[in-house]
Amino acid sequence: MAGPLSGITIVDVTTNISGPSLTMILADLGAEIIKIERPVTGDDSRGMGPFWEGEGVYFLHINRNKKSVVIDLKKDDGRKIVYDLVEKADVFVENFRYKKAEKMGLGYEKLKEINPAIVYCSLSAYGQDGPLRERSGYDAIAQADSGIIGINGAEGSEIARVPVSVLDQGSAMWGAIGIISALFHKEKTGEGQLVTTSLYETGVFWVGYHMLSWLATGKEPKKNGAGHTAFAPYGAFYASDAPVMIGISNNSLFSRLCKVLGKAEWITDTRYETNPKRIENRENLRVAIENILQSKTADEWVKLLAEAGVPSSKVKKISEVVGDEQAEAIKMWERVAHSNIEGFKLPRLPFELSMSPAEIKQAPPKLGENSKDILKKIGYDEAKIEELLNEKIVQTIEDKAQTR
Amino acid sequence: MAGPLSGITIVDVTTNISGPSLTMILADLGAEIIKIERPVTGDDSRGMGPFWEGEGVYFLHINRNKKSVVIDLKKDDGRKIVYDLVEKADVFVENFRYKKAEKMGLGYEKLKEINPAIVYCSLSAYGQDGPLRERSGYDAIAQADSGIIGINGAEGSEIARVPVSVLDQGSAMWGAIGIISALFHKEKTGEGQLVTTSLYETGVFWVGYHMLSWLATGKEPKKNGAGHTAFAPYGAFYASDAPVMIGISNNSLFSRLCKVLGKAEWITDTRYETNPKRIENRENLRVAIENILQSKTADEWVKLLAEAGVPSSKVKKISEVVGDEQAEAIKMWERVAHSNIEGFKLPRLPFELSMSPAEIKQAPPKLGENSKDILKKIGYDEAKIEELLNEKIVQTIEDKAQTR
Repeated sequence: MAGPLSGITIVDVTTNISGPSLTMILADLGAEIIKIERPVTGDDSRGMGPFWEGEGVYFLHINRNKKSVVIDLKKDDGRKIVYDLVEKADVFVENFRYKKAEKMGLGYEKLKEINPAIVYCSLSAYGQDGPLRERSGYDAIAQADSGIIGINGAEGSEIARVPVSVLDQGSAMWGAIGIISALFHKEKTGEGQLVTTSLYETGVFWVGYHMLSWLATGKEPKKNGAGHTAFAPYGAFYASDAPVMIGISNNSLFSRLCKVLGKAEWITDTRYETNPKRIENRENLRVAIENILQSKTADEWVKLLAEAGVPSSKVKKISEVVGDEQAEAIKMWERVAHSNIEGFKLPRLPFELSMSPAEIKQAPPKLGENSKDILKKIGYDEAKIEELLNEKIVQTIEDKAQTR
Repeated sequence: MAGPLSGITIVDVTTNISGPSLTMILADLGAEIIKIERPVTGDDSRGMGPFWEGEGVYFLHINRNKKSVVIDLKKDDGRKIVYDLVEKADVFVENFRYKKAEKMGLGYEKLKEINPAIVYCSLSAYGQDGPLRERSGYDAIAQADSGIIGINGAEGSEIARVPVSVLDQGSAMWGAIGIISALFHKEKTGEGQLVTTSLYETGVFWVGYHMLSWLATGKEPKKNGAGHTAFAPYGAFYASDAPVMIGISNNSLFSRLCKVLGKAEWITDTRYETNPKRIENRENLRVAIENILQSKTADEWVKLLAEAGVPSSKVKKISEVVGDEQAEAIKMWERVAHSNIEGFKLPRLPFELSMSPAEIKQAPPKLGENSKDILKKIGYDEAKIEELLNEKIVQTIEDKAQTR
């Protein structure tokens, strides 16, 4: 069984996190990704720590299943190779700064001349218009600009970014949704198109609920810690040794919680009988719950609450998540052969397709690992390839020792 | 121009946040969403506050472009209607608890008998296997279980969930990627399939970088506030009146920052000359930067930094994001006619397609607004519809006054 995008060829000139995360999704789904990297250093993320046997972990995570072709895009003959690749490709993805692709001769209008059916994706920091369009993109900066950081953390706490790069990863996902939708449209009509997305748009969309809440009520959303504006009790409640997360969204769950806590009388308590009442008396309820939770450990409470069907959990460490038996049971990890990392493994994409499954077929490429093969594939002969190598327009893996 | 999924029909029995967020994406892309709701109350999210002229804002946000059909799925004749709908549909989406769809006669095996080419999507809390598969799903609980909450916030700060429901919204996006990929596969092969995703898998994937960092280094990732493990200076730095977010990921940006701060000598300072050195001397560098930032306001610094091409921003409030001129310039908001909310508007999806654009065509439906139309469309005659209404198997919008 092959992935749904098998047979699709993608020319990928992206670097760092967002763009490569986007093409990783398409790669896992079966597309061939021709990852074009600049000579000598390649994708910046190769140098981002921490390192696993010398390889940057971010690079390792988001570049599996790709082919590395090193081309100097500043040279005309380098650009010409990209044109030849685009002619035979289905998709082109870039995450340069505003208008840089155009200046390099790699804009949509130019590539559309070469391949009218190309699906061209621009992933930027702030979009293709407006006063901020020329700004470069960093997850944390765009999190601040889109209001996420302003509401993250406990009330009065220090400023904290969401620690999982939701804008890099989120914009990658929106870009993937756009590209796959465009491929579906192309399959039906033969027509290519331009797909654009950005970190900022993603951030503004993530805060959609909060923006509408503000429009509806005029109340400025604020930092809410582990709680939720719309529900109570909801959040972190301290047991004797550690906090327990509890999430109660309706009366039926509240009843179950009350029974586990030995407080059946709360079910009919006028302060707590509906969710709006519980929100109103949130603080009082929290203190009352924590008084009871003090009598047992977090593990004991989570077990009791789970038995009663009350949503709850402990706050897990990253190291606990890696070895978690739930993650194991749903096979979140795939072992991948890697030339210098023993026991290398990567998390699969978080969804499964029964008939055309996503796969991790190979480890991230070494810089220039596939330069020769890909050029041969599009019809370059040995002499031509040799010439490009000599002129340092193309670089292969063998050059690495000399150039680094 | 119609959206890429125009012509696709989706039967949607999901409720609350994650499932409806998924089908919202498909709806904006042009698919017809037949949203099946239970009698009297409908989707739980209709009752989740805050409210905008009596309508729950979460519901309003994620149910635009859908058709509401009220069916009592507990009755055989209700289920029969779903079978008739599925026969003519392309996709079925459910987010019931583990095995509940099967028990209701709406499992994949059953619906595949009725329509072998159906794309069937199950969006669950913890996946279809493992010790936690029967648990119900709440964004904050799964955030704790997948390690996100454990690293969110400033060092030593109180527990805080990521405040933008990254697991509800993220799993919705993964489900959409899976479904559109499956539709692409179906377009080529005629074959349907099962698509599964979950909040937990999404959470584990979000922390991928941190898990690999732990595997690579054995160092437990910890709360990092506004900072980033891999870069310095990166994070929130206090100016005279408010913090400024600054993100420096390479030497060239660091040079620019130094010049803006009037500290060109830092560029060659042995403590700061490379990113690894800056990470090592992170705290010292932070203090030095803040000493200088104290001389001007955050707005003044952001202006100077932007002019020099240094990524920076202020921490915006949600109310500021709603009216932000950047959001305005890229047309993040679409005005949507709504029967009882004047000035109603919603944020569009955060990507754009030039030839088959996503659109917000209509406001979220009233409960049962489309019951009759949809039944007529699949061939039910007036007498049959009247019978179903009388037996309270189906409900229309006119019933609302009687039943609420």
